[in-house]
Amino acid sequence: MQTFARPRLGAGVLFQVKEVGMLSKAQERYEDSHIFRVRHSCSHIMAQAVLELFPNAKYAIGPAIEDGFYYDFDLPRTLTPEDLEHIEKRMKEIIKGNHDFIRQEVSAEEARQIFKDQPYKLELIDGLEKGEVDEDGNPLEEKPVISIYKHDKFVDLCRGPHVANTREINPKAVKLMQVSGAYWRGDEHNPMLQRIYGTAWETPEELEQYLWRLEEAKKRDHRKLGKELDIYLFDDEIGPGLPLWTPRGGAIIEEIEKLAKEMEFKYGYERVRTPHLAKEDLYLRSGHLPYYAESMYPPMELEGVRYYVKPMNCPMHHKIFASKPRSYRELPVRLAEYGTCYRYEKSGELFGLMRVRSMQMNDSHIYCSEEQFEQEFVGVIHLYLEYFRLFGIQDYLMRLSTHHPRGLGKKYVNNPELWRKTEDMVRKALDNNGIPYVEIADEAAFYGPKIDVQVKSAIGREFTLATNQVDFAQPERFDLKFINEKGEEERPLIIHRAPLSTHERLIGFLLEHYAGAFPVWLSPEQVRIIPITDAQNEYAKQLERRLRALEVRATADLDSDRMNAKIRKAQLLKIPYMLVVGEREAQAGAVALRKRDGTQQTLSVDEFVALLQEKISTRAADL
Amino acid sequence: MQTFARPRLGAGVLFQVKEVGMLSKAQERYEDSHIFRVRHSCSHIMAQAVLELFPNAKYAIGPAIEDGFYYDFDLPRTLTPEDLEHIEKRMKEIIKGNHDFIRQEVSAEEARQIFKDQPYKLELIDGLEKGEVDEDGNPLEEKPVISIYKHDKFVDLCRGPHVANTREINPKAVKLMQVSGAYWRGDEHNPMLQRIYGTAWETPEELEQYLWRLEEAKKRDHRKLGKELDIYLFDDEIGPGLPLWTPRGGAIIEEIEKLAKEMEFKYGYERVRTPHLAKEDLYLRSGHLPYYAESMYPPMELEGVRYYVKPMNCPMHHKIFASKPRSYRELPVRLAEYGTCYRYEKSGELFGLMRVRSMQMNDSHIYCSEEQFEQEFVGVIHLYLEYFRLFGIQDYLMRLSTHHPRGLGKKYVNNPELWRKTEDMVRKALDNNGIPYVEIADEAAFYGPKIDVQVKSAIGREFTLATNQVDFAQPERFDLKFINEKGEEERPLIIHRAPLSTHERLIGFLLEHYAGAFPVWLSPEQVRIIPITDAQNEYAKQLERRLRALEVRATADLDSDRMNAKIRKAQLLKIPYMLVVGEREAQAGAVALRKRDGTQQTLSVDEFVALLQEKISTRAADL
Repeated sequence: MQTFARPRLGAGVLFQVKEVGMLSKAQERYEDSHIFRVRHSCSHIMAQAVLELFPNAKYAIGPAIEDGFYYDFDLPRTLTPEDLEHIEKRMKEIIKGNHDFIRQEVSAEEARQIFKDQPYKLELIDGLEKGEVDEDGNPLEEKPVISIYKHDKFVDLCRGPHVANTREINPKAVKLMQVSGAYWRGDEHNPMLQRIYGTAWETPEELEQYLWRLEEAKKRDHRKLGKELDIYLFDDEIGPGLPLWTPRGGAIIEEIEKLAKEMEFKYGYERVRTPHLAKEDLYLRSGHLPYYAESMYPPMELEGVRYYVKPMNCPMHHKIFASKPRSYRELPVRLAEYGTCYRYEKSGELFGLMRVRSMQMNDSHIYCSEEQFEQEFVGVIHLYLEYFRLFGIQDYLMRLSTHHPRGLGKKYVNNPELWRKTEDMVRKALDNNGIPYVEIADEAAFYGPKIDVQVKSAIGREFTLATNQVDFAQPERFDLKFINEKGEEERPLIIHRAPLSTHERLIGFLLEHYAGAFPVWLSPEQVRIIPITDAQNEYAKQLERRLRALEVRATADLDSDRMNAKIRKAQLLKIPYMLVVGEREAQAGAVALRKRDGTQQTLSVDEFVALLQEKISTRAADL
Repeated sequence: MQTFARPRLGAGVLFQVKEVGMLSKAQERYEDSHIFRVRHSCSHIMAQAVLELFPNAKYAIGPAIEDGFYYDFDLPRTLTPEDLEHIEKRMKEIIKGNHDFIRQEVSAEEARQIFKDQPYKLELIDGLEKGEVDEDGNPLEEKPVISIYKHDKFVDLCRGPHVANTREINPKAVKLMQVSGAYWRGDEHNPMLQRIYGTAWETPEELEQYLWRLEEAKKRDHRKLGKELDIYLFDDEIGPGLPLWTPRGGAIIEEIEKLAKEMEFKYGYERVRTPHLAKEDLYLRSGHLPYYAESMYPPMELEGVRYYVKPMNCPMHHKIFASKPRSYRELPVRLAEYGTCYRYEKSGELFGLMRVRSMQMNDSHIYCSEEQFEQEFVGVIHLYLEYFRLFGIQDYLMRLSTHHPRGLGKKYVNNPELWRKTEDMVRKALDNNGIPYVEIADEAAFYGPKIDVQVKSAIGREFTLATNQVDFAQPERFDLKFINEKGEEERPLIIHRAPLSTHERLIGFLLEHYAGAFPVWLSPEQVRIIPITDAQNEYAKQLERRLRALEVRATADLDSDRMNAKIRKAQLLKIPYMLVVGEREAQAGAVALRKRDGTQQTLSVDEFVALLQEKISTRAADL
């Protein structure tokens, strides 16, 4: 029986939307980079311009962030778009003044003197003196030296680093973006400040590209596309984070499940089905209670028994494994389920389909012996790669998260020997099979090391899409065993895996990845048939019947609209194939095929059916 | 806004295990039948025999029931099997005595005199006098005449009817079955009595058949087969009524869902997916709360919001319908989902897979105009009949349940005009399409008339498997509407339908229906390959790979057991096809096919694959 710190949990708990690189090695490099210094310097320059405009302004903190910088101000009035233009213009003048940035160390007393009219800075200085926080309000481990940076007529309390001189900044690559409200120190009990966001790049071309990406991101945002393409909805009477999938969303889900079932049958998985709720006892055994309770929906209590909706499928699968005696001959047992789990994410953390409260997971648990481990673990990774090829995902990173000895007995199961052995097994499996990865210490799951596969969407959002975790703690808690070749009882290892994440996350990702223009096999509606006049309505219906008999999602548009309006409707829904049929096509048994990409050709119906079936059956990426 | 009595709810609530005929017209005929009188008379004869054995016995009530009769006694000691033998023997002697059954009307006072030593009878007489209950303790509407029946030396308070003379009873067709405990008047605060069950038939052959059916029923019991065939399990830590489906059960579910999806695509349904929980608000709107609360799991309360796991899918589908403006051109909209619902059935009512707390329902809601109603309603019934043909279900009954004016505003939505109109629509739809049905008044759903399809399993258990209900109440509560041809807002009608019931109920039924010997397409394991010696292991693996590449559920049995033991194992699992492969088969590229029915033949691998694929793709009933 191990002691339990608040555990990190199975597949899925760790699906979180992370900003690019924020937790990766890349982060360290960014802080050392020149562009980081440019952005940090821009925030000082912006503060200077704001103070010139509002001499009584109080300024708070102003860091560089991903893609830019911001600064928070306490101002006598709300900023207008004209103010931003003025401030940006003034920043460019300051930049062109070729001012040096000069660092200077000061005592707390000197700092208080310099910032005597600036209450936020004084509060920061108090914190610095106590060694609590740095200039940006972040907690610190060691009491720091207090430093200030000066340029032109401006001085700021700052740890740096900055450019040596403003001539290192290209004024044509700097732009102010927007203003929003922000509480001082992020605490809603503190005053609300005005935060000005800006962006800065090495060259004007980079700025251009960034602005284009932002535009594209807006267009591709899965929440926007989800509404336009009628994929899913939320409803106030049902609750936040609980999406309802419309027929169009349902069609995508069905295709993804069909794919997963085919692939998993091929890879030797067996499908089970388990309830969405269970007695408290189950989660006490698994260790999710009481430690994970705050992420679960609260219990339903009746006749002295507490039931919880399940936050993960794992314990249910373990029960099925344990439901009969197992021999080494049966292993590996690979139990798969598209199980729906429920987690009570905080309202503020909910985000479209990416962070929800109900999640239908492409889940599986593999029960295997130590000897089988390498093959199974690598098998899972190959399954991932097969999926990525199919979806055209090229931008991904395998992160091996291992334990750290200081966390043993707290963050991690207290069995150093087992950690060493398992981590070696995983590294060996990856190395032997030539699979590239980065290793991150102190990020393992509670019960074992794991591989997260980070993918980047077309608009630069990074997701943990897939996960592959080793578990050497749960087999003991559930007393899982098999009879080995020597006739002795042995504990299996468990691999948790979820290559396609959840329907919610995956479809959110794919909406952005494809900008809503799904490949034919995955399109909610595959073919729209458009008669040129009512005289072809019967022919259109006939085509619809023929295609639907082949299980193609085809619709004849027999509305009273004109042809061009019908084409426009189909384009807005990003339907891959339009069949425009007039008198000539009806007589020839032909169709004028108009693809989503704008290309057109006339085909016989048989030719079109052959093309369509080939694209669907091969799950082709192209039209 | 209508007033709400405790409502009867949508599809699924009414899935209940009912004894054959108890609620059908058949029941009336049974009470008029000769065999009913035989059984009722046997209960008196049994009481006579018991009183001879225990002169101080107190006797309570003794009705005829389906297939037999019982009588409840207050006895000085517990009955033994030998007592039963003795009583049965004595009954046969009494029967052979050719005694008349004589009816006599008496006053309450006379009755009290006759039964002065029989406290249970005295209690019944009190009730009869007050006009509350009949001789069997059932509530009565009118104050009845009190009658007694005499035969030989025995007299009983009884409404009858009985045979005229015991010579109408064949003593060789009477048998006592068992003894069990029963509270007086079914109330646990009353004394526990001993209930003796017997059966009686017109002929000894009918008795034989009945006993055979009972034996068969034991063998076919889905709870027994579910365990033997490893289909599902319950687990104490998960909770009663919450089944876990093993890989073998999962395979059956997947096949049924595949079938339903194909059929529903063909019939123009669209698939949606909705969460398993929702805010209280949703169920207040639908009217399930507070009236249906006792059948629901209790709420989960967090941050002042109450969430419930859903007891039905209806309100979620209504929300999807209401999520965008609808035109008459889109109608009918047919939303389908294999949604899992949760209902808190009382522990005592749980019964294998037939009465559970989690149920995955073959659910759909059809939103249509009044003009479309007939076609849609009949379409659903045709869908049912197509399923029944496929599963070889011939023994079914369509029951049209209508309202009764006295229940308006209580059991039924208070809109007499709408009831009349809708019931006429349903009758007309059935009559016009030549669909036979029986009509039962005062059994409708709260919101409209319904068709229940009762099917009888191989062992005589009758189930409401499918249901088809009209709903004219929910469209108003959810403010559902569409724009009709005149450009005006109009309310759609809703048809609730669930032809395949729930996975739980259907698979329970099919287990008994097929006695576990599923047709090939539905078999959890379709082919078992058995090498004669280890030398054919490689050939067996090769066959397994070939079949699995065709998505066939095939397994090569490479255990160390001997061939005969392997055949026996496969037989116990009722696998339809065994391929026994020896040296000869391996060399010839052939298989010795041994079907589940015992027939054998040697085929080339190609021939076998062709046979197999034909049986699977046509979902053939035969092997």
